[in-house]
Amino acid sequence: MSGMLDRPVAAQQLGLGEPGDADLLRRIPIEAPVAIEYNGIGYAVMMATPADLEAYAVGLTLAEGIARADEIEDIGVHPIEGGWIVRVTLPPERLETVIERARTRVSESSCGLCGIESIEQVLRPLPPVTARIATSRAAIAKALAALSDHQPLSAATGAVHAAAFCTPDGRIVAAREDVGRHNALDKLIGALALDGIDPAGGFILLSARCSYELVEKTVRAGCPMLVTISAPTSLAVERAAAAGLTLVALARADNALVLSDPHGSIV
Amino acid sequence: MSGMLDRPVAAQQLGLGEPGDADLLRRIPIEAPVAIEYNGIGYAVMMATPADLEAYAVGLTLAEGIARADEIEDIGVHPIEGGWIVRVTLPPERLETVIERARTRVSESSCGLCGIESIEQVLRPLPPVTARIATSRAAIAKALAALSDHQPLSAATGAVHAAAFCTPDGRIVAAREDVGRHNALDKLIGALALDGIDPAGGFILLSARCSYELVEKTVRAGCPMLVTISAPTSLAVERAAAAGLTLVALARADNALVLSDPHGSIV
Repeated sequence: MSGMLDRPVAAQQLGLGEPGDADLLRRIPIEAPVAIEYNGIGYAVMMATPADLEAYAVGLTLAEGIARADEIEDIGVHPIEGGWIVRVTLPPERLETVIERARTRVSESSCGLCGIESIEQVLRPLPPVTARIATSRAAIAKALAALSDHQPLSAATGAVHAAAFCTPDGRIVAAREDVGRHNALDKLIGALALDGIDPAGGFILLSARCSYELVEKTVRAGCPMLVTISAPTSLAVERAAAAGLTLVALARADNALVLSDPHGSIV
Repeated sequence: MSGMLDRPVAAQQLGLGEPGDADLLRRIPIEAPVAIEYNGIGYAVMMATPADLEAYAVGLTLAEGIARADEIEDIGVHPIEGGWIVRVTLPPERLETVIERARTRVSESSCGLCGIESIEQVLRPLPPVTARIATSRAAIAKALAALSDHQPLSAATGAVHAAAFCTPDGRIVAAREDVGRHNALDKLIGALALDGIDPAGGFILLSARCSYELVEKTVRAGCPMLVTISAPTSLAVERAAAAGLTLVALARADNALVLSDPHGSIV
């Protein structure tokens, strides 16, 4: 499960303006349907890169509020025709949440629930960030400079996102990649749980644009600070401010943009 | 509905390495929940940029196979607390599809359906591309060079994707923007339908990475060729080849990568 096709794909490079025609072999990242089941109950099918699927299942279980990592009894990752199935085993009492969520989605997706109620369900309240860290601009710069060393799949294919967890002094302690930025973050948070690393003690660095769901996943994981390389959306800024998350965007070699730092985390 | 917050957001620029601290005002693109209803039946809540929502609803209706554009009787766009509702009115006989889809999603998301069946439903067969165009590398280069002129929201905020429709000689005739790349494409396809422009007669240019859903939306719209600025995923390449779509990725100023051109569209 390297996350890319075993064989490079033949492609023709087309010079535009300049001469530059060439026959190339190009490495392609895998995007495949991944079905998540809890105790045999189908929960969701996500499009993801089939690497680190165990960590992905743990991160998704945490992000969806289904169970704590230490409550997961078993995870089986199975390739099937056309995709992958990840079978998670939980204690029976945790299935109530799974079944309830399935029922909630039934009512969300079928007739009867109006758009206003649906929107209220999408934007559920976030728990406030309670963890505090003291980091610095030097630490952000250090983590940024080291990120590409933790992106082997991106280096090979040029088409995937990375999520990294960094200590307050800017050392990257874990990183995961995926064609989907939210999947990369789920994988990272799952990997931290599997390794017994508390997200409260550092910050998360993302190669991607900052959408609201990345803010929400960071907050729900208990991490006090999110740094993204690209720009944020309105809802990302609003949700970060409401939850007390320190939010830094457009982090580049020269500078970064602090959109929210309610607790003075960057000294 | 400009697609960005009326007022810029105050942010602090942090010099990294170089001196560069400054207090800035930054324009932020809006990401908001948009609920789609058909004749009062809640269908989906999407996170999107609330601009061109009428075109978005038309494009989504086409992409989901619910109705033809000329069957849509009315579209009402309504701001509400926390988001937007788009109310689409269809002839009663078209609601069967809406209700059936709602039922399908019920079975997808609730117990009983196994992961294998869910994955088969995700990857439904695509209709083959039947339209043919004759375009050129000069046309691709021309459209690429002109794209930024059609991205006002991106120029202001730096965080949104664009989808453009181009004639075979590389002239951009329509473009739409959104924080989500699939939304930008839905808006473009909806705008073409509203303006009576047949997607069969040109190619689509996207600022984004090429995921399978962008390939599928292009094929289902009847457009024979897709050009993307970033790299493709495995499923995008597979689905394009299976449907006979001409697929060009990594289109940059100097060169572009032709991954599939089964009908010799690029002469």
